[in-house]
Amino acid sequence: MHRTRARLSDGREIIYYDEAPGRVPVPDPRGLPPVEPRCEVRRDPLTGDHVTITAHRNARTFLPPADQCPLCPGGPASEIPDPSYEVAVFENRFPSFDVRTPPVPPLVDGAADGAADGAADGAADGAADGAAGGVARARGDGRCEVVCFTDDHAASMALLPVSRVRTVIDAWADRTAELSAIPGVRQVFVFENRGVEIGVTLHHPHGQIYAYPFVTPRTERMLAMAAGRDLFGDVLKAERAGSRVVVAGEHWTAYVPAAARWPVEVHLMPHRHVPDLAALDDGERAELAVLYRDLLRRCDALYDDPLPYVAGWHQAPTGAGRDLVRLHLELFSVRRAPGKIKYLAGSESGMAAWINDVPPEAAAARLRGVTAGEASG
Amino acid sequence: MHRTRARLSDGREIIYYDEAPGRVPVPDPRGLPPVEPRCEVRRDPLTGDHVTITAHRNARTFLPPADQCPLCPGGPASEIPDPSYEVAVFENRFPSFDVRTPPVPPLVDGAADGAADGAADGAADGAADGAAGGVARARGDGRCEVVCFTDDHAASMALLPVSRVRTVIDAWADRTAELSAIPGVRQVFVFENRGVEIGVTLHHPHGQIYAYPFVTPRTERMLAMAAGRDLFGDVLKAERAGSRVVVAGEHWTAYVPAAARWPVEVHLMPHRHVPDLAALDDGERAELAVLYRDLLRRCDALYDDPLPYVAGWHQAPTGAGRDLVRLHLELFSVRRAPGKIKYLAGSESGMAAWINDVPPEAAAARLRGVTAGEASG
Repeated sequence: MHRTRARLSDGREIIYYDEAPGRVPVPDPRGLPPVEPRCEVRRDPLTGDHVTITAHRNARTFLPPADQCPLCPGGPASEIPDPSYEVAVFENRFPSFDVRTPPVPPLVDGAADGAADGAADGAADGAADGAAGGVARARGDGRCEVVCFTDDHAASMALLPVSRVRTVIDAWADRTAELSAIPGVRQVFVFENRGVEIGVTLHHPHGQIYAYPFVTPRTERMLAMAAGRDLFGDVLKAERAGSRVVVAGEHWTAYVPAAARWPVEVHLMPHRHVPDLAALDDGERAELAVLYRDLLRRCDALYDDPLPYVAGWHQAPTGAGRDLVRLHLELFSVRRAPGKIKYLAGSESGMAAWINDVPPEAAAARLRGVTAGEASG
Repeated sequence: MHRTRARLSDGREIIYYDEAPGRVPVPDPRGLPPVEPRCEVRRDPLTGDHVTITAHRNARTFLPPADQCPLCPGGPASEIPDPSYEVAVFENRFPSFDVRTPPVPPLVDGAADGAADGAADGAADGAADGAAGGVARARGDGRCEVVCFTDDHAASMALLPVSRVRTVIDAWADRTAELSAIPGVRQVFVFENRGVEIGVTLHHPHGQIYAYPFVTPRTERMLAMAAGRDLFGDVLKAERAGSRVVVAGEHWTAYVPAAARWPVEVHLMPHRHVPDLAALDDGERAELAVLYRDLLRRCDALYDDPLPYVAGWHQAPTGAGRDLVRLHLELFSVRRAPGKIKYLAGSESGMAAWINDVPPEAAAARLRGVTAGEASG
């Protein structure tokens, strides 16, 4: 895997990942004005969860016509100047977190607790210690990247050759290591949103990476459950002995979790306790490229058209608790039947109490039952 | 407020709430077969959250034609036999929780931990103590009800007279008290989902009530934050001193919370520390009827068409922690601009890390700025 760095016209970084060496990046001809991110993190005093406020993002690109796709290579509207690429990563022009965010002004009202302009994590501590129910605010430090899997607008991750999936995995691992080293970054989340039902604004095959300045609420729950035990090892052992395994290899097992929240939900867990993608060895990456693609193909074969999904790589925090969390994929879909979507309504959105109409055992049986022919497309 | 009880043909209870006495319920002519709910609660070992599996609900009614509306009064397809009603409450035919659920069979695989067929709360404890990463299962005990606000199919809560809003509040309070007394019920959630964008399957103005056999994940977070302090009093004090108050009265204050997760989000908090709707006194209920309707009218005036929303009444657990949680409304919408919806994608659905494009201060100013004429419709 060969990495080539360059800059877009507004100063954002772009990084190409290729199987062969020798790329000479084409300059970005656009002359874009510099990004002016306004990212702010506030800690909800009622729950302790971090919430990010990003006023500048409401104007972001929404489903442009295919001939103006910013992820297709070259051309006047493209974010990727080179006329062709294998895997390309660049800083998001509409980031949720960005180290260029200016200091946050103190809250002018009584809710301020003097924690303004600290790091997000300092803000978290400030809110916990706050005496008056106030909300600590902090700059939304961090970095958001877009990961393009192919320069073919009509492809998808599931249709790429295994060698390309491997390059994507290597790029994810490299980005994870690099973003984890940014001061203030506490967790790196690698994910793909696919499908308009999930709110995807660009159809070109791509994923994203969020380098958060805090540990996410879901991971905080896992840290609390993992204290003092081998939580992920125990769960993997129980699931491998259970009836919900979808596919398994020497290094990885994919299963529908016993307490699945979504009508389609699969977790893919490595057999070795590793904190993140960067820690995977060559054998684990090679098997992952095959198994991950197989899993996506099974998902796409469930219904008549490709499955809308969120595929998220849960990685350990960069600091405290790093040894407690095992890297794993959580892939899920809102589709509960052909043409039917699971909406998050009162119970899920209001109370975080999920109701799932599809028994996990039945979902696993369906995903197992997809024939090799269907799954290999 | 006058309460009249009856039974539907399949044995489910229906309760009418009227301003005047004298209702004589009409018998249900349908001869429906008994409901056979299959509700099961599992505790996610990775997060400790309860997840509910309801296989029987995948076939539920989805946007029937208006002339087959099951919430319009009388007629062969109606759930409400009487030819007219003010407020009617009945047990949901497709419940997420139901005391008639049969025992849960033990998991046939290695994930079983011997907690099968316990109460949901026992299951939670079982999972916490489980040594092998297994998932405890329990019957989804509890009860789900539908609350019809009016027999006028084309109305909405915001358009009802204040006297009817008051009857709805009294019905909510009565249902909260009665459902809280069911053995095994740990928390009662009163909510309204409104709009197809939120997944509403019936347009007739109505809300729902879930009587959960566990304390919901969001409330569990609040309990953790509230231990040893007056969390809700502190938050209310800070917000009343802040810049995000929308409307306030003698007994209630509505504000956009400093760490709002949604593009439109308003909390309505009583000034007195009460655990639930049943504990509200006459003065608080009278003001609530006026303020709640005013709030909904402001929301509907934000855009050209009525706002899709979830309006959820957070109430204290029936048991442990009851003194720590204050009743309050959390109302929010997925609409972030005319014709634009906020989707829950990777960060929100995968990591529970909300990104909000609308600064809460700006949202509050917009809701305050809706003129009295617009708000009183």
